[in-house]
Amino acid sequence: MPHLTSAVATPSRAPEIQLDPQGMERLRGLVRDHADALVKAFYDVLLEDREAQGFLHHSIVQERLSPSLRTWLIDLFAPGLDVEGKSFIARQTKIGEVHARIKIPMHLVMAGAAVLKGRIADLLADDEARFDQLRLVGERIDAALLLMSQSYVKGTMNRARMDEAYRLFSLDQDIHFERESQRASLMEWSQKTLFRILGAGPNEATSALGRSPFGLWIRHRADFLFEASPHLERLNQAIDRIDEDLLPRIDAGDRAESLTALQAGVEEIAFLLNEMFQGLAGLEGGRDPLTRTLNRRFLSSILSREIGFANANQTPLSVLLLDVDHFKRINDEHGHPAGDEVLRQVAEAVTENVRPSDFVFRYGGEEFLIVLVETTLQQAVAVAERTRQALEARDIKIGGAERLRVTASIGAAEHGGHPDENYLIKTADEALYRAKQAGRNRVEQNG
Amino acid sequence: MPHLTSAVATPSRAPEIQLDPQGMERLRGLVRDHADALVKAFYDVLLEDREAQGFLHHSIVQERLSPSLRTWLIDLFAPGLDVEGKSFIARQTKIGEVHARIKIPMHLVMAGAAVLKGRIADLLADDEARFDQLRLVGERIDAALLLMSQSYVKGTMNRARMDEAYRLFSLDQDIHFERESQRASLMEWSQKTLFRILGAGPNEATSALGRSPFGLWIRHRADFLFEASPHLERLNQAIDRIDEDLLPRIDAGDRAESLTALQAGVEEIAFLLNEMFQGLAGLEGGRDPLTRTLNRRFLSSILSREIGFANANQTPLSVLLLDVDHFKRINDEHGHPAGDEVLRQVAEAVTENVRPSDFVFRYGGEEFLIVLVETTLQQAVAVAERTRQALEARDIKIGGAERLRVTASIGAAEHGGHPDENYLIKTADEALYRAKQAGRNRVEQNG
Repeated sequence: MPHLTSAVATPSRAPEIQLDPQGMERLRGLVRDHADALVKAFYDVLLEDREAQGFLHHSIVQERLSPSLRTWLIDLFAPGLDVEGKSFIARQTKIGEVHARIKIPMHLVMAGAAVLKGRIADLLADDEARFDQLRLVGERIDAALLLMSQSYVKGTMNRARMDEAYRLFSLDQDIHFERESQRASLMEWSQKTLFRILGAGPNEATSALGRSPFGLWIRHRADFLFEASPHLERLNQAIDRIDEDLLPRIDAGDRAESLTALQAGVEEIAFLLNEMFQGLAGLEGGRDPLTRTLNRRFLSSILSREIGFANANQTPLSVLLLDVDHFKRINDEHGHPAGDEVLRQVAEAVTENVRPSDFVFRYGGEEFLIVLVETTLQQAVAVAERTRQALEARDIKIGGAERLRVTASIGAAEHGGHPDENYLIKTADEALYRAKQAGRNRVEQNG
Repeated sequence: MPHLTSAVATPSRAPEIQLDPQGMERLRGLVRDHADALVKAFYDVLLEDREAQGFLHHSIVQERLSPSLRTWLIDLFAPGLDVEGKSFIARQTKIGEVHARIKIPMHLVMAGAAVLKGRIADLLADDEARFDQLRLVGERIDAALLLMSQSYVKGTMNRARMDEAYRLFSLDQDIHFERESQRASLMEWSQKTLFRILGAGPNEATSALGRSPFGLWIRHRADFLFEASPHLERLNQAIDRIDEDLLPRIDAGDRAESLTALQAGVEEIAFLLNEMFQGLAGLEGGRDPLTRTLNRRFLSSILSREIGFANANQTPLSVLLLDVDHFKRINDEHGHPAGDEVLRQVAEAVTENVRPSDFVFRYGGEEFLIVLVETTLQQAVAVAERTRQALEARDIKIGGAERLRVTASIGAAEHGGHPDENYLIKTADEALYRAKQAGRNRVEQNG
């Protein structure tokens, strides 16, 4: 029985150019003699990058990474080196893994390697041998980069999966409890600060909101939970205003105005915090809440898996794209609750006519996309036609005694081997367009 | 206020080598004249790869990808090409995105590019210009690969995140319902098949289990849900045995033995299915079920984020590694339930002594790892000491009137700028080792 999981890669490489022993030794000597300058040139490229600056401080580069690169570079031009040998593969693979872990992007390593190639080319003596030497330099660096890239991508994908798992786990925690406890934490800071200002509290030093438990939580938890929220930036600015502007003014004796501003600042932060927590609710559902069909954000994961399966096992695969006819008119004439009920009924009609192994997505406002596994175009058209008729026959109750009849147009397309999922969807969309053009309430195919 | 999110990358490139117009034109003519052979050499490398074969069938390569590569290659040696220009960057970025979507691994593209470089080098005329021509070939191909790699990795990471989100969503569905409905689906196939064999049912053609709704579900859902399960392979083999061995024998008239074997096969499948569903329960918890501390699988995501934050903002960061003293003896003398209670109490003592913004992990059997954000070594040691004393003072009830006292050894380490999270953990582990060596129930630091 065929499986979805794919085999491990075995990359193929070109045979290496051969240098005579003297040419090889000269090349190696040259790299060794200029190793420090080459290493510096490599890291200059990395440190120029804004992204890299954050995690590659100069002292780290000096103390730890530079000596490793130096050894790597000199070893790369060892005369007997076998770029298909186990130890070479293990070493470069390990480097890729480390880069994934410490987040040195592969493209920056490639940029640094391109600079190394250029510098070494500049250093080569102007003689007969230099063409082959340059080829060998390119080949060996490329062989190393290829192996690094392979393990880097694997490590980075694993990391991305884990990051996502953690993010979803965080969202799944008791959000109500978290909201109340952070609100309390903010109020506690505010109260302590007021007592201190009023002279009634213990004579503590000014404690910045950003340094309080609330501030720490915002930096180390909220930044993750509310990644996408536009409120987070405003909340951070409000904290900065309090810490950098208001507290110093209060400490300097300017109380009257500053206290009002402080109160307004804390209220704004509480408001934004609440808004952000509200925004979390329902944000991450895997299903469309109205129709219980799959959320479109999973379409790419699923369809690309199924395309891989179909290509690997030579099994058929089809998709349907269904659009409710005249949906806008239904909404306009009968109101949104009626429109919602129509969408629920359409989803039900679709779901009743497919198998447990198929996938139904809410694709757009009134559009559904259905992935039919191991299904030919002919079979897909039959499913579409059955669904179309089932929907046409439904009496849809919309509040009170009022009943509606709705129809849908459907485009069917079979996967033809093209590895891009967008291509298959586009093909189904073209068929749907023709079904609409031909008068609606019909199925068209595009194979 | 500093943030965890990093800036967009701006990779730096080396200045390009300049060829005279004739040298450039000769190079371009040569690439154009041999374009078909070069394209073939590139795809031969990809199609040699087992992983790539699954998604790159020869017809697809011929019809769609080869012409694109041909154009890309010829355009790459256009005389006026600016590898830092917008249109070049946009084009290569787009290619990387498409490769991520259709899952052409970056390292295979790099392997193909290495072959291209070698072939073009072989084609260069043996004259003065060829050294610079070779440099330019390398530079332009590398410039393109770098941009592709950047967008490929980004696209692949997004895909990995979405795949993981979908996987967790699937696990979160109503697993009990799914189990019963697939068991019913298996039994339905089995019953239909028996009726047909006994001649009592309608005269249907033999329908393979692999083709039944159950078989489809196994291939398109279970393969994903039970990715890691050792039972899945056995279940697939059992289906294959029924379809490829038993059914043909039954159709050929060999009933007696085959029916017994069929019954055994169906029972085995039902058993394995049940086992796999059982294995799902609790598998994916974000927290350790016993101690409610964080699951170790999130450690890398969290610690690497915090290291990035500390490096970017120059804030301190520390970790504690805590090990319960003589835990084995507690288990041996008082039994596992007592050991479990001890672990719960230790977790509670730790949690009560850290802030809401810190992270507590179950790191090993009786080990806990604590990430203390924005905390210096001195502060970390104070937290560790407070925790150690709090634990020492606890009376731990273990069933009935029996009470225990336990202690723990703690190693503290501060992050010193090293970007690898494993390094920080190793440092804390060394401190913990010294605390154990020095007699246990104490805190040691290693900064």
